[in-house]
Amino acid sequence: MKFNIATIPGDGIGPEVIEETIFVLNKVAEMHGHEFSFQEVLAGGIAIDKTGKPLPEETVEICKNSDAVLLGAVGGPKWDTLPGDQRPEKALLGLREVLGLYANLRPAVLYTALKEASPLRSDIVEKGIDICVVRELTGGIYFGERGRKKEGKMGEAAYDTEAYSVGEVERIARTAFEIAMKRDKRVTSVDKANILESSRLWRSVVIEVAKDYPEVTLDHMYVDNAAMQLVRYPQQFDVIVTSNMFGDILSDEASMLTGSIGMLPSASLAEGNLGMYEPIHGSAPDIAGENKANPIATILSAAMMLRHSFQLDKEAQIIEEAVVKVLEKNYRTADIMSKGMTLVGTKEMGKLIVEEL
Amino acid sequence: MKFNIATIPGDGIGPEVIEETIFVLNKVAEMHGHEFSFQEVLAGGIAIDKTGKPLPEETVEICKNSDAVLLGAVGGPKWDTLPGDQRPEKALLGLREVLGLYANLRPAVLYTALKEASPLRSDIVEKGIDICVVRELTGGIYFGERGRKKEGKMGEAAYDTEAYSVGEVERIARTAFEIAMKRDKRVTSVDKANILESSRLWRSVVIEVAKDYPEVTLDHMYVDNAAMQLVRYPQQFDVIVTSNMFGDILSDEASMLTGSIGMLPSASLAEGNLGMYEPIHGSAPDIAGENKANPIATILSAAMMLRHSFQLDKEAQIIEEAVVKVLEKNYRTADIMSKGMTLVGTKEMGKLIVEEL
Ligand SMILES: CC(C)[C@H](C(=O)O)[C@@H](O)C(=O)O
Ligand SMILES: CC(C)[C@H](C(=O)O)[C@@H](O)C(=O)O
Repeated sequence: MKFNIATIPGDGIGPEVIEETIFVLNKVAEMHGHEFSFQEVLAGGIAIDKTGKPLPEETVEICKNSDAVLLGAVGGPKWDTLPGDQRPEKALLGLREVLGLYANLRPAVLYTALKEASPLRSDIVEKGIDICVVRELTGGIYFGERGRKKEGKMGEAAYDTEAYSVGEVERIARTAFEIAMKRDKRVTSVDKANILESSRLWRSVVIEVAKDYPEVTLDHMYVDNAAMQLVRYPQQFDVIVTSNMFGDILSDEASMLTGSIGMLPSASLAEGNLGMYEPIHGSAPDIAGENKANPIATILSAAMMLRHSFQLDKEAQIIEEAVVKVLEKNYRTADIMSKGMTLVGTKEMGKLIVEEL
Repeated sequence: MKFNIATIPGDGIGPEVIEETIFVLNKVAEMHGHEFSFQEVLAGGIAIDKTGKPLPEETVEICKNSDAVLLGAVGGPKWDTLPGDQRPEKALLGLREVLGLYANLRPAVLYTALKEASPLRSDIVEKGIDICVVRELTGGIYFGERGRKKEGKMGEAAYDTEAYSVGEVERIARTAFEIAMKRDKRVTSVDKANILESSRLWRSVVIEVAKDYPEVTLDHMYVDNAAMQLVRYPQQFDVIVTSNMFGDILSDEASMLTGSIGMLPSASLAEGNLGMYEPIHGSAPDIAGENKANPIATILSAAMMLRHSFQLDKEAQIIEEAVVKVLEKNYRTADIMSKGMTLVGTKEMGKLIVEEL
């Protein structure tokens, strides 16, 4: 099969990790008779430098017309002093909006080989961590009306609106239940229904959608409690479905619990097959260009792309297994290095994974 | 000195832990020549049962005219099926609003004697945890306009408004800096200024207030990052100041990291000296009336009351030290019990603390 992939190397270590990922994808294509064609586009800081805008129209057009988008990382201190609207992260928010990427899948997986890196007590991580956070990504307070008022409660005020409509909650809930069906069939919907009207709507819609998935167990949890329970007993979670804002917080917390952010991929899905895939780590400008970055999170993001946008489940699994094998052979990039392991650079890590495919 | 304290035993284990706390306070009064007079009032589930309302007017009046309010716990499954507006937690929200309790102080302290209970790796908790979360408590999305709209983005919608005005941020920031001055002189202001207009206002006001506290180091952190950093390296925080919603999430996360929620007090302060003091744990209806509850969080809340509402710093410290001594003598209630320790009930724990005063 033939697929068109728009690549956004972006800033910092982005280009390096994308390069290794393309290397892996080309090998997979060759082995399994597929054809991946890559078109590189600009977004983030580099786009600001070259075009004056974090998300040029050309990038949007090409992404829209691709089968999937693969992104490295955007941002860095160089652009941090720009006004909000011109910052690199606007590229991310813009892509989410124009591509309609309403479902953000953020797996938080503890790799057995790396379990010592988890900040949690060993008896807690003994049983592993395998959570998939399904975060709504194009609604809520991220995209609601906001502004200033001359006269608020006590002087000038600023406001933001958290809003959710039935259709928005319905589709993200459906995504979460579909994913749960392929996992441990447990969904925890996280909200603040004791306070927020939007959470009360959220909860009632999730309950409705659940009726179509009688095999899946549904729980509801308040967001404050979820933030505690994640640290206390992460195994109680299989799939967490929640709003844009709560998902931003909880998915980062869950990722940190695995101890290896350099390993974790993410997928942002639109209706249909289009998706954007990116590592959850940042652009790490301090090590950019030094062959030190860990390409695994981006390579695993490519595996998610094969699975969710191309329906190439088998090939996705082959990549994931190759990563595990390399870790089990004790190869480590600097970010996941520990005593007795073999330190390798970005390129070597890419090559090792290709060899295990 | 003479102080009037309104007590709200509330539901579940509330009455038991309040009883021990009064016992401790009376002893402190006797030893140091003060007079505490207690007036018990109804709120929460018990108030619903007796008056039909979670927060009767009489309770509000008496609290308003007291020097401080001491609360046990409210809520329980018995009232969970009531409509939102008639639930026990409405009492909390109502008291915050009518008493103007804008500053919620939530210390997350790891007691050396209990460090094994922390879910974090021992090398992380080795260095201790001592964070004070200062949460804005009468503004933000908790008290903003909310409602439904027939036509939202995709069908019927519900919305909530996060709003902050300059004066609201100013006073909570000032509280945080004042507290930092008595601690390690570091404030981390947590917001989501890359997305929210209210966060941008928040950040600029905090920066202004900081100018009056040149000795205090101020940092800004996005809420998603803060949720990660708390688990990764809690020692980087001294005082965290944040909005109502973010504070709800982060203070619970921070509490859980200490591993002993049964130990943690809280204070909710109004302008002037009035404050409401309560343990952060819930009403634990499963063990209510069995002499099993841990009264320490409530006793430590009373210590906060002495410090923040009555300016009795020395007496507060005496209570806090008594608690540490009892722990060091290896006495434990069931919730913090571990091998080799001496198990005691609620009443014994109260008595042991009184003996150490
Ligand atoms: C960069 C920022 C706008 C973004 C978000 O808040 O969504 C990031 O934190 C994320 O989670 O992808
Ligand atoms: C019970 C609930 C309304 C309350 C809140 O969200 O403020 C609680 O979680 C708290 O933190 O005191």
